[in-house]
Amino acid sequence: MAQYDLVVRGGTVVTASETFLADVGIVEGRITALGERLDAGAQDIDARGLLVMPGGVDSHCHIEQPKRGGLRNAESFDTGTRSALAGGTTSVICFSPQFRGEPIGTVLEEYHRLARRARCDYSFHLLISDPTDQVLEQELPRLIESGLRSLKIFMTTESSALDDGQILRLLACAKRHGALVVFHAENYAAIKWLTQRLLDAGLTAPKYHAWSKPAVVEREACHRAIALAEIVDTPIQIFHVSADEVAEEIARARRRGLKVHGETCPQYLVLSDEDLDRPGFEGAKYVFSPAARPKREQAALWRHIADGTLDIVSSDHAPWNYDDAAGKKAHGETAAFNQIPNGVPGLAARLPLLFEEGVRGGHITLNQFVAITATNPARLFGLHPRKGTIAIGADADLVLWDADRTVRLDNAMMQHAVDYTPFEGRTVRGWPRTVLLRGQVAMHEGEVRSQPGDGRFLPRGPYDMLKPSGRLPTPFDPVAGTVRAAREEG
Amino acid sequence: MAQYDLVVRGGTVVTASETFLADVGIVEGRITALGERLDAGAQDIDARGLLVMPGGVDSHCHIEQPKRGGLRNAESFDTGTRSALAGGTTSVICFSPQFRGEPIGTVLEEYHRLARRARCDYSFHLLISDPTDQVLEQELPRLIESGLRSLKIFMTTESSALDDGQILRLLACAKRHGALVVFHAENYAAIKWLTQRLLDAGLTAPKYHAWSKPAVVEREACHRAIALAEIVDTPIQIFHVSADEVAEEIARARRRGLKVHGETCPQYLVLSDEDLDRPGFEGAKYVFSPAARPKREQAALWRHIADGTLDIVSSDHAPWNYDDAAGKKAHGETAAFNQIPNGVPGLAARLPLLFEEGVRGGHITLNQFVAITATNPARLFGLHPRKGTIAIGADADLVLWDADRTVRLDNAMMQHAVDYTPFEGRTVRGWPRTVLLRGQVAMHEGEVRSQPGDGRFLPRGPYDMLKPSGRLPTPFDPVAGTVRAAREEG
Amino acid sequence: MAQYDLVVRGGTVVTASETFLADVGIVEGRITALGERLDAGAQDIDARGLLVMPGGVDSHCHIEQPKRGGLRNAESFDTGTRSALAGGTTSVICFSPQFRGEPIGTVLEEYHRLARRARCDYSFHLLISDPTDQVLEQELPRLIESGLRSLKIFMTTESSALDDGQILRLLACAKRHGALVVFHAENYAAIKWLTQRLLDAGLTAPKYHAWSKPAVVEREACHRAIALAEIVDTPIQIFHVSADEVAEEIARARRRGLKVHGETCPQYLVLSDEDLDRPGFEGAKYVFSPAARPKREQAALWRHIADGTLDIVSSDHAPWNYDDAAGKKAHGETAAFNQIPNGVPGLAARLPLLFEEGVRGGHITLNQFVAITATNPARLFGLHPRKGTIAIGADADLVLWDADRTVRLDNAMMQHAVDYTPFEGRTVRGWPRTVLLRGQVAMHEGEVRSQPGDGRFLPRGPYDMLKPSGRLPTPFDPVAGTVRAAREEG
Amino acid sequence: MAQYDLVVRGGTVVTASETFLADVGIVEGRITALGERLDAGAQDIDARGLLVMPGGVDSHCHIEQPKRGGLRNAESFDTGTRSALAGGTTSVICFSPQFRGEPIGTVLEEYHRLARRARCDYSFHLLISDPTDQVLEQELPRLIESGLRSLKIFMTTESSALDDGQILRLLACAKRHGALVVFHAENYAAIKWLTQRLLDAGLTAPKYHAWSKPAVVEREACHRAIALAEIVDTPIQIFHVSADEVAEEIARARRRGLKVHGETCPQYLVLSDEDLDRPGFEGAKYVFSPAARPKREQAALWRHIADGTLDIVSSDHAPWNYDDAAGKKAHGETAAFNQIPNGVPGLAARLPLLFEEGVRGGHITLNQFVAITATNPARLFGLHPRKGTIAIGADADLVLWDADRTVRLDNAMMQHAVDYTPFEGRTVRGWPRTVLLRGQVAMHEGEVRSQPGDGRFLPRGPYDMLKPSGRLPTPFDPVAGTVRAAREEG
Repeated sequence: MAQYDLVVRGGTVVTASETFLADVGIVEGRITALGERLDAGAQDIDARGLLVMPGGVDSHCHIEQPKRGGLRNAESFDTGTRSALAGGTTSVICFSPQFRGEPIGTVLEEYHRLARRARCDYSFHLLISDPTDQVLEQELPRLIESGLRSLKIFMTTESSALDDGQILRLLACAKRHGALVVFHAENYAAIKWLTQRLLDAGLTAPKYHAWSKPAVVEREACHRAIALAEIVDTPIQIFHVSADEVAEEIARARRRGLKVHGETCPQYLVLSDEDLDRPGFEGAKYVFSPAARPKREQAALWRHIADGTLDIVSSDHAPWNYDDAAGKKAHGETAAFNQIPNGVPGLAARLPLLFEEGVRGGHITLNQFVAITATNPARLFGLHPRKGTIAIGADADLVLWDADRTVRLDNAMMQHAVDYTPFEGRTVRGWPRTVLLRGQVAMHEGEVRSQPGDGRFLPRGPYDMLKPSGRLPTPFDPVAGTVRAAREEG
Repeated sequence: MAQYDLVVRGGTVVTASETFLADVGIVEGRITALGERLDAGAQDIDARGLLVMPGGVDSHCHIEQPKRGGLRNAESFDTGTRSALAGGTTSVICFSPQFRGEPIGTVLEEYHRLARRARCDYSFHLLISDPTDQVLEQELPRLIESGLRSLKIFMTTESSALDDGQILRLLACAKRHGALVVFHAENYAAIKWLTQRLLDAGLTAPKYHAWSKPAVVEREACHRAIALAEIVDTPIQIFHVSADEVAEEIARARRRGLKVHGETCPQYLVLSDEDLDRPGFEGAKYVFSPAARPKREQAALWRHIADGTLDIVSSDHAPWNYDDAAGKKAHGETAAFNQIPNGVPGLAARLPLLFEEGVRGGHITLNQFVAITATNPARLFGLHPRKGTIAIGADADLVLWDADRTVRLDNAMMQHAVDYTPFEGRTVRGWPRTVLLRGQVAMHEGEVRSQPGDGRFLPRGPYDMLKPSGRLPTPFDPVAGTVRAAREEG
Repeated sequence: MAQYDLVVRGGTVVTASETFLADVGIVEGRITALGERLDAGAQDIDARGLLVMPGGVDSHCHIEQPKRGGLRNAESFDTGTRSALAGGTTSVICFSPQFRGEPIGTVLEEYHRLARRARCDYSFHLLISDPTDQVLEQELPRLIESGLRSLKIFMTTESSALDDGQILRLLACAKRHGALVVFHAENYAAIKWLTQRLLDAGLTAPKYHAWSKPAVVEREACHRAIALAEIVDTPIQIFHVSADEVAEEIARARRRGLKVHGETCPQYLVLSDEDLDRPGFEGAKYVFSPAARPKREQAALWRHIADGTLDIVSSDHAPWNYDDAAGKKAHGETAAFNQIPNGVPGLAARLPLLFEEGVRGGHITLNQFVAITATNPARLFGLHPRKGTIAIGADADLVLWDADRTVRLDNAMMQHAVDYTPFEGRTVRGWPRTVLLRGQVAMHEGEVRSQPGDGRFLPRGPYDMLKPSGRLPTPFDPVAGTVRAAREEG
Repeated sequence: MAQYDLVVRGGTVVTASETFLADVGIVEGRITALGERLDAGAQDIDARGLLVMPGGVDSHCHIEQPKRGGLRNAESFDTGTRSALAGGTTSVICFSPQFRGEPIGTVLEEYHRLARRARCDYSFHLLISDPTDQVLEQELPRLIESGLRSLKIFMTTESSALDDGQILRLLACAKRHGALVVFHAENYAAIKWLTQRLLDAGLTAPKYHAWSKPAVVEREACHRAIALAEIVDTPIQIFHVSADEVAEEIARARRRGLKVHGETCPQYLVLSDEDLDRPGFEGAKYVFSPAARPKREQAALWRHIADGTLDIVSSDHAPWNYDDAAGKKAHGETAAFNQIPNGVPGLAARLPLLFEEGVRGGHITLNQFVAITATNPARLFGLHPRKGTIAIGADADLVLWDADRTVRLDNAMMQHAVDYTPFEGRTVRGWPRTVLLRGQVAMHEGEVRSQPGDGRFLPRGPYDMLKPSGRLPTPFDPVAGTVRAAREEG
């Protein structure tokens, strides 16, 4: 009887820190051996000439996410995770929203049900819109304990934005019970006011989306989120950092020793405000928030990625059809920028774009590529070491990457349910040939073999990244309600 | 007939940039000549051996300020301005508050009436608590036009804090009509939450006042105020900066070319959180907001003063009696820190403390002393060149300063209506011998000669400091509602 | 008999901090009165509609400066100071060089003799090329005592560069005896190496001058000069700062509390590396050191001026003829960039350019204009309060400025001895109508009336700006040779 | 026949990014397998309960290094590498010095001969003291090609300091031929001057060593080294960073995108200037350069380690006996600080100290510990992936670490030839139980089994870390002698 169910043979294994030639031996969906010449498995896959990397972990994507009023985005778990696998991603974290006035559980239960159709593994962030005492003291402790260890805060949007007091209470709850708080950081009042001023001036084209939320709006909220987290002393992540001045706030916080993580997305690295100004209504395809920035920000973002300030690059996959009820068809091409649904689909394109622009472009190493696409998100969200790495005992989620294949991106390749990709027509060199999910071939040569229901929910236990920094502003710990000995110098 | 009503003879004239021996000739309350040997005046004052400096301009003091429910602080315009003159200050700007649900005018009219008892000249900031459309579009334009060109925003306190949307609208109104917005910058939600957590933990002594509002709370609000002003592009001032990290936000904004001014107060330069921890209930005498900081902040604040980031040092005179209804007597010595009225009296002590600590302490020059105590506040608030300087045409508001007189501060010297001074017992070298208000001897050797009613209201016209920086984040000017040509590089 | 020899009547007096209408009364060359309506003088000048400002103080100009081998630059004291007066400058500080192997006195004596032909007042910096023990212990103490209180250090050039050990000894000497050290800060070894590499690559056109000394070369030397001065703790000035990254080093030093001053020149504010790339050999007219930078640096420099990091703008007038032995004619148009004499003439254009670009361009106020062109240089170099201000007792060096006169600059207007101006063809609004030197009309409507020999040497006494910061790196004071008590925190 | 020569069984494998339970299979000295339950090897080592980490790579140690005049330090390759193995380090890079006036080869040949007695693997940095054309153009290209790919520059010391021109030429040579330049960055002239001033003042005790070279001296040289490398655009490393202000220069350079690496050493993390002030002559045991700093710097250094600015922590093992010719005995206890040989022994204590202070102290994670002690030095110096990691194909250099063993450090444990350790008496928890060198047990329970001669020389090929950043200051590449297309924005 073969020692291994499967051996991936002769590939170049890449982790967040190492690159080496090795066979990968897999038993019951887990990696049980790495070696020079492993014994034959029940099945062998020839990976010679390919990179063998951990399957992508996309810690920020919106799939089949319910909105008040019953609206869901274009993607189902079936199609969304199909798109993930098509692009080399094997785990996704999406969002279970709470609606104001309702407990979290109402949607969550339904969302768990929907997610059973997923083709890859998944977890949820809990989007908290109404942190009542009941939620903070009863529902959340239980849900966090059950493995949902990340809480999403909107600082903008009419329906979901929390005020500073709510944020503080949620941060305290997260610290007490062991969860990570993640922020969509934009100042809602400012966006609302600028939007109204633009509309009043008759400036309604898609390009004014960016004018309604300049980087300062994001920088403000980012600094505020950091300050509030500093008061509570609990780790946070800032989502989709779009500009140098925003990333710089995170970098400053880290220099002070605070535990603040920054994320950005491929769209901020390859698209720009010029795309919002495409002829006709085409700009509508590039409406996402924070908005696309001037091109000069891209190099700065790469620098912040390279130095670890932005340690995760996720897709913020947010799938709305261009020709759909929510988009062009509903409002016609005269829809004002603030009526256009926010977000672009990007699950499948994430790895190829980052490989092309980042690794080939010389901004990051191959190991950093693995770190920002798989290891770091797995680690920050408590999926590591099960996910996001190639190590003994880890799930055999692997992407066999053909670094030499040149591909011209088109919408069909994305295999999502959306009617366009904002990356249409771009050429990349480097493409996933085969994807394994827990040792099973989930995608091969563009064919997604994993079926709806093959994905599993990923509960997350308490984990290291949730530890506070120990740097409270005063000797008083407001969560513990106790006074510490004086903080040491430095 | 004498050419001059009064000649101040033989003193060393000090301005914000120059120091020179000269006689000062005064006609009808204004300086009409500076010269080596002016002709005799109808009256001559011998100023040999003295410094002749512009009378202090205190742009931040609370005098007889009404509170909802009829409460006023300990000081009347009679006593408050007596204290000002006792310490060498000849112009004060205090606060006319708007109560929510009421127009500004209600209190303002009454406040004008009260102020007619002032012994020195005065103007008002308008404290805006309820910026309704009516206020923004009708009342404020008229009041600004009438010469009340500064609007005070609280970012904290239950009764007065504005939210970000209100702040933006007020900033836009200020820009449109030519007013300066000044901020009490602290994050209210954070203070409220920390206060409750401290009280819950049974930590109620005065020293916990500082723990309830650490510098990060102030830094957050300061950065937010700057960001909002950046969106509107209108100049602002941040009141009573207490710590390096807060001042650094202002410095960063100035390096970006924004028009942000910072103020601090003597209490932040000479008192510390150790005072809040004095035995018994004594710490209650040092409860002000932002709170007293650790001593190490003092040197940093002086550096920020020296380099112009903090260009005004005012008193934030806020007079509450220690043994009074609002203080110890009401609550007893068991009052929790959050029940203690905020603020310390400081009108009279401002100049002597700054002279001792700043000039003698080597942190600032004599010219910088004049700048931060008189010229800069006069300039920022549109009183210059009538006030705050010694120049031809300026009001003859002069302080004849005996740089060699050593004084041990006690409460009687302060000549205010408050039953203590937080600076009791400090020794300073440098004390005002004589103060002139518009050419009249208003104080001499501690005797205030100016009478209630001798002070005049100071309307302020449009002035240079109100000009925007021209650095809007996008080509759209949200106040004008127009699109500018692309911003130039740099 | 008239009380005043001269009254300048009805002008708008501008100082570094004030602007006011006043007559200026002058007796025996000094200002003895400022007043609303002074009595008639023996002579009256009508200044209505004009700005009355302190005559410019140009603390950095090369006039008739001997070079080894007998070569002098194009200007004599006669022509150089004529040019100064033509542009509104009444005091100049130029350079008396020491030649290696010789005492300072050899050239100095000769230089004093040459300077007797000056038309305006003057002082010298001592350019030290060979700080032997004899020089440091005997010659310099005597010369400093005699009123020559500034020592120039070259960190570049073959003939004059000092090494770090020499710099330290000179800084210590300056501190001990009360002199200010000023630096030409560029790394010589780097320039030499880059120059050779460029020449080796056949890149010899004038534009490569800038490539041979990029800003990093200047930033390095600037940081090193600051570090060495920090070790000694004595004030220094960095000459002709050309780029943001250099100014930022000064700003950082000031934030640490060090006494470091920065100077820039009009050429860095209005010229750029594009001028070096003009057709034919024209670029040779723009060869100066540090080199012209990309245009984007200009806005940054203005910001550093506005915030006081660069507190002096001087001309660095360095007059070489384009068609002269030293220039085109000698080498022909094929001269390599490193054979072209460095420096441009700029004495006359300094004030008009700064008024146009700075005041009209909105970068600085009128008072800041006076500060950077007159008050600050006078103060830093010990000429204040005699020079650089309008105050009682000051020399009556005044420029009566027509803010509304539009002038197109040409070489004749410069009234120097050089055959071109790099500012040819620029239009400025604002021009000196009349210049007074110690109460005498020295220039009027372009006619320089002051004669060779009318200028006077300005000895300088010990003065405040020479005080150390008190921030030594260790308790040891290496100049005093003593150990101080521990430095206080902050 | 067993598949593996050796299996390390049941340990917790730690790499720079991962931590997992695995057996390690070893064949012919290399790691050929990692697996859950590997087949039995010819020999098995039980590592249950132990951490299995890559053997330490110490990229900065002085062993048997010849000095002019024949003097060698206390250590031989026999004893030095014994000490390395005793503390868990399996590869060392030490220094082959060039003497001025001589080719590199003279000493190098002899040094190779001496090193044949090493017990662990080794490579050399070439210390360049005399970069003549012959050296730069003939000797170095050949030696670099032979695998000696790092060049050490002293910016201080009488015998070895290079001037800026020499540094530039050496940097250019390194870039051209593929070598890394490493710097001892202190300003020699400043140290020399301060030393003389201290001695002149009679301040000779060991503590004045620190006063003779304050952090500013190091910051200056660090900034200068960076600036020179910026001109050439080639990667560099700054050795033994001792203070926040120095590390901040490196951090600033990295933010600009430059390739600058920083190293620090355990002595800067656990010792302080207070140790230099120990009673009697004891301070002499703590004389190293840069000097020990105030304790407050330690926390800052840990922050810079945690954020990757200081990415390597090496020992700077520099072994001089306290009671030896070079130390106390020679000079007696009255030796002046500048007569005391610089350096402390630290090869054996490095890992235990960093584990205790860093990992247990909460400053770094276990993975970061591996990174800074093994992976990063191996990577920066071209030994990776052969050394510094646990990966398929890597040398089986392993340290089996008992994280729970508490040890009180004493000199015997260090197993070096020096008569003291500066870390005497410190208690650490965490100690190497067994060390493997290429699959052989080289140390077990304190017994070093590896024999003199068991170590091998490690030639280094061209490798990735030597790539320039692409950020030249101008379009001219001074090493290639060519002009590039314009640098892109950002």
